[in-house]
Order: sequence, then C-alpha cells, then structure tokens
Amino acid sequence: MSETPAINRQFQLAARPHGLPKPDDWRYVESPVRALADGEVLVETRYLSLDPAMRGWMNEHRSYIAPVALGAVMRAGGAGRVLASRHAGFAPGQDVTGSLGVQTHAVVAGSGLRVVDGSIAPLPTFLNALGMPGFTAYFGLLDVGQPKAGETVVVSAAAGAVGSLVGQIAKVHGCRVVGIAGGPEKGRYVVDELGFDAAIDYKTGNVRDSLERLCPAGVDVYFDNVGGEVLDTVLAKLALHARVVICGAISQYNSTTGARAPSNYLSLLVNRARMQGFIVFDYAARYGEAEAKLAVWRAAGRLVSREHVVAGFERFPQVLLKLFTGENHGKLVLEV
Amino acid sequence: MSETPAINRQFQLAARPHGLPKPDDWRYVESPVRALADGEVLVETRYLSLDPAMRGWMNEHRSYIAPVALGAVMRAGGAGRVLASRHAGFAPGQDVTGSLGVQTHAVVAGSGLRVVDGSIAPLPTFLNALGMPGFTAYFGLLDVGQPKAGETVVVSAAAGAVGSLVGQIAKVHGCRVVGIAGGPEKGRYVVDELGFDAAIDYKTGNVRDSLERLCPAGVDVYFDNVGGEVLDTVLAKLALHARVVICGAISQYNSTTGARAPSNYLSLLVNRARMQGFIVFDYAARYGEAEAKLAVWRAAGRLVSREHVVAGFERFPQVLLKLFTGENHGKLVLEV
Repeated sequence: MSETPAINRQFQLAARPHGLPKPDDWRYVESPVRALADGEVLVETRYLSLDPAMRGWMNEHRSYIAPVALGAVMRAGGAGRVLASRHAGFAPGQDVTGSLGVQTHAVVAGSGLRVVDGSIAPLPTFLNALGMPGFTAYFGLLDVGQPKAGETVVVSAAAGAVGSLVGQIAKVHGCRVVGIAGGPEKGRYVVDELGFDAAIDYKTGNVRDSLERLCPAGVDVYFDNVGGEVLDTVLAKLALHARVVICGAISQYNSTTGARAPSNYLSLLVNRARMQGFIVFDYAARYGEAEAKLAVWRAAGRLVSREHVVAGFERFPQVLLKLFTGENHGKLVLEV
Repeated sequence: MSETPAINRQFQLAARPHGLPKPDDWRYVESPVRALADGEVLVETRYLSLDPAMRGWMNEHRSYIAPVALGAVMRAGGAGRVLASRHAGFAPGQDVTGSLGVQTHAVVAGSGLRVVDGSIAPLPTFLNALGMPGFTAYFGLLDVGQPKAGETVVVSAAAGAVGSLVGQIAKVHGCRVVGIAGGPEKGRYVVDELGFDAAIDYKTGNVRDSLERLCPAGVDVYFDNVGGEVLDTVLAKLALHARVVICGAISQYNSTTGARAPSNYLSLLVNRARMQGFIVFDYAARYGEAEAKLAVWRAAGRLVSREHVVAGFERFPQVLLKLFTGENHGKLVLEV
C-alpha cells in the first residue's frame, strides 16, 4: 500500500426501490481507502457478481440476511487481488473472492475471504461454477433435492447461473433434465451447449402441456428459481415422493403486489412430496468440498461455466437490470 | 352365517357433491349379503369412522386414492365383528377394523383387516387413538415433523381427532404445544383436558398476533389439518429449520372457488424450512409399532382418546356434516 491512499469508488444504496431499481436509488461516491485494522485485508476488486438475491437485500425487511442499510455500500460478491493485508492468511498478490461490495477497493475481514487459484480457471469462473452459483446448485440439488439416477429433474431459470449448473450436475448424476427458460435461444443453449435433455419456453409454450409431454411420469425433483406461475404449474405435475427445492423467486422480487402463491400446494400431500428452502451460506463449512467436485467435473468437460462479463464499473446500475429483463446468458459479471 | 343371507344396508354415492354433500348425493340401498369367496371375511359393522378425508374421495379426480365410483358404497373405515370367514387369519367373533364402507355388513378381503383386542380399549377407540387418527398423528408428527424436546409445536383443528392426538404426542416428547381451534370451548378442552400449553381461537382471535405472543421464537413444527388462511398465517411465523406437515386442508375441501394458496411460502426459503405432505397408508407396515406405543401412552394416562359417538346408521348423511360445521368434539364415530 503506497503512502498516498488509493481512492475507492463505490455505489451506495440511496433509496429502497419500489419495483425495479431506478438510477436514483443509487449514489456514486469516491473516498480515500482507510487504513487496515488487525485481521483486515485490502482487496482491489476485479470482478463483481451480479445476482438476483441482491434485489431482496435492498428491501427494508430482514430476510435471511440483514438488508443493506441506506447510505451503505451495496453488498455484492466479488473477485479481486490482495493489495495489502494485516491478516496472517493473506498476502499481496493473491487472488481472493468474498463479499467485496460494489466498490473498487474493499477493506474486509480476512475471515470472509477465500483464496482462489487462477491456474485452475479464469477469475470470473470463481464467481460462477467454482463460486456461489456453483455451491448453490451443488448443495441445493444434491443435499436438498437428493436426485437419484434415472429420475426426472426440472429446473427453472435454466439458462441462468444457478439453473444451468443445476441441470449439468443432475446430468452428472444420471438424471433426465428438463430446463424451463424464456425464449428459443435459451432453450437451444441449455440443450445444445449444456446437454439438457429438453427445454420448455415459458414465454411462448404452454408449460403445463410441455411438462405433460416431456415428463409423463411426473417430476421427481423441481429446482425452483422463479416462483410464481411456473412453480404452481410444476407443483401440479409432481411425481410420488417428489422434492421441490426453493432456491429463489426471481419472478416475484420486483412485484409490487405481493408474491403469487402456489395454489397447487396440496399436490405435496397427494404425492407425499416435500418443498424445502435453503440458503447456501449454511453450507460454508463445505464450500471446499463443493469447489473440488465442481472443479473436477469442469476439468473433465462435464460442466460448462459460462460467464456473461460486462465491462464498466460505472455502469453497475444499468447492468444489474439485465438480471430482471432476462438479457443475460449465463452468470452476469461486472468487470471493474 | 345362516342359511338365509343377512340383509346389508348401505349408503351409495349417488352424485358428486358441489360444496357440502347434500341428502340427494346419497342413495340408501338394501340387498342380501353375497356369499364369500376364498380369502374374504364377512364383518358386521358396529362403528363407522367419519373423517374429513371422505369429502375428497367423493370428488371426481383421483387424489392419493381412487375416487368412490358413482353407485358404489361410500368408503369409510369401521370397526365390527367377524360373522363368517374364508380367510385363515380370521374367525367368527373376532373384533376387527378396516375399510368396511358405509354399510351394515361388509364382505372384504381379509388382507385389509386388522384384528383388535377389545380388552385394551373400547371398540371406538380403535377408530381414534389406536386407529387411523392415532397412526396419522404418530407418523405425521414424529416421522415427518421430527419434533425435538423443547421445540414449539403448533397444530390446527386441535380439538379434532388427529389434532388432539398430535398435541398430546408432542407433549409426550417434551414440546411446547399450541393448538388452533374454533371457539373458546374447544380451546379450554385442549388446554384443560388434553394438556396443551395454550390455544388460539381462530374464530374470534387474531391468529397472527396470538402466534406472535405465544410463540415469540417462532414455530418449529406446524402440523396443518386446515390449509387456507391459517396455514398462510403460520408460515409467516416459522422458526429457522421449521417443518410444516401437510396432513389435510379441511377449510378447503368444500370450496367451490379453488384452494386459497399459501402466499407466504417464501418463508420456507428464508427459514431453511420444509413443507411436506404424507399419507398414513404409506406406513401400513408400521401400524403395529404405532398401536403399541399409543396404547402404552394411553394406559399411562398420557393420551386422552375422546370419541364423539352418534347413534343411528340411517342418519349418516346428516352426521357426516358435523365434521364441516365444527360441531364434533373429538373423533366423530357413527354407531351402527
């Protein structure tokens, strides 16, 4: 760290959005980087992970994690390089990931960082298959969904970061995989490039009829990223002893009228099925296990990790919106 | 069996009800009892179990069990005495329970009957704590709900057959138990006679505020018999890692406008909770285990099995309605 402190640029949450975040829900601030306390590390941010969950963190009520305070830097996962360290586990020059926030220079507790090895994969991949989306797919599908070989797995937001990995991990485990995504291009992507068995276009197709045709024996595991009407439709097609994994509800996050509820929940009774939510943070002690498995599958060519990298830190507010308009293909990453 | 065959009286399903079953949805028929085939047993029905699930069996669509066909005898569990047997496991004079149907003389496969010992408890108790409601409460609470000592268990339709047993079994396992029931009399019953810790009157009280007050740390296990608004309200009060057991949805069975959906299902995500349905029939191989445990608890005075016995076979159509008007206290049983 030089004598003259570096300048940190950051986006703070200025107002709580109603519906989609607007430009003036953000405040752009520049300030000198403060000195490190014991146990802290200064990281120069290189890539920021833009995730649907960020929308929930902007609301006032507490969810599984405290909301971002007004006037605080927006929370975001990121990957970067250590510039300075007062933590024994980190040294300048190392690549790390962690909750860096939407800022160019993050001073964070070392306990919240993970060292990553750039020789295994490019840095953005550690924000995708070898990072939180990968861990979310891995634990959500395998621990909560418990798929068995030969079973039919359906996943929504199938072309998204988590969804695309869920489907591929299910294929590794010998399942038949049907992805639900918006538009023919995403459908082709998950089938032709990711190896899903079939795709359903919820925008133009009839999801109910397509499920009837593609999953004649019902859905054994449904990994839900979207909520709303799609969740309700899949509930009506569960197989006996099905598992519904509730990972997110992106169709509902910007709703200003309240979430659409799953009317068909009694299918859980009829089919002796369960619907279960999870939060990846609960599996922190097992991230290493997940990273190793995912890295092996990726190295063997069984797992495609596709990042949609958009450059330009200052464009953060606009780039974030791509998540909700469905414009992104693969994991949305902002290059700083 | 005498030379002159006995006359069987039965109620057949004449039409599929819209809303509450009406008198002309039934047809009363008398006919001679037919001769037994190999493996069959003739049972004289003494008590019939009237259950909320019967309403679902009257609908056209298949649920977890085929609907009752139009013109067929109405399905019902019952207890009675063996009059004749062509099955090696049964002999005249034995008390048995099984799916006897709403009729005075049932010819049934011996494989569907269980011998019960009238010296342990009165016969109607084998349609309650030592029968299907007991098994439903036992497996639903313990296997699906998995309560731990010290946890808070909430049960709806708490004064009903299954609900009252769920609460008492939870008390045996060291839980705090809050029952939701309609009216002050039922509330007093579950607290004063069954030993629940508290009761909430959903008819006059504010369920949400009451839960806030009575379950300040949230609900660990919710055993749901009612669905609808009560389920949705409890979902908003789940504790971390809560288990919601879907046993039934009596508030919705006669709905002509579709079930009210649980809008607050994302509480499952936030609280890493699960919602799971079950059907007691799946546990048939373990009924003996349940009966033994329940009988021991009952003998030790830890389990009250209260039957609401109404006499008069010919009054079946009217008596059944007591289930949906909330008039019954404890297990509704029709004495033939």
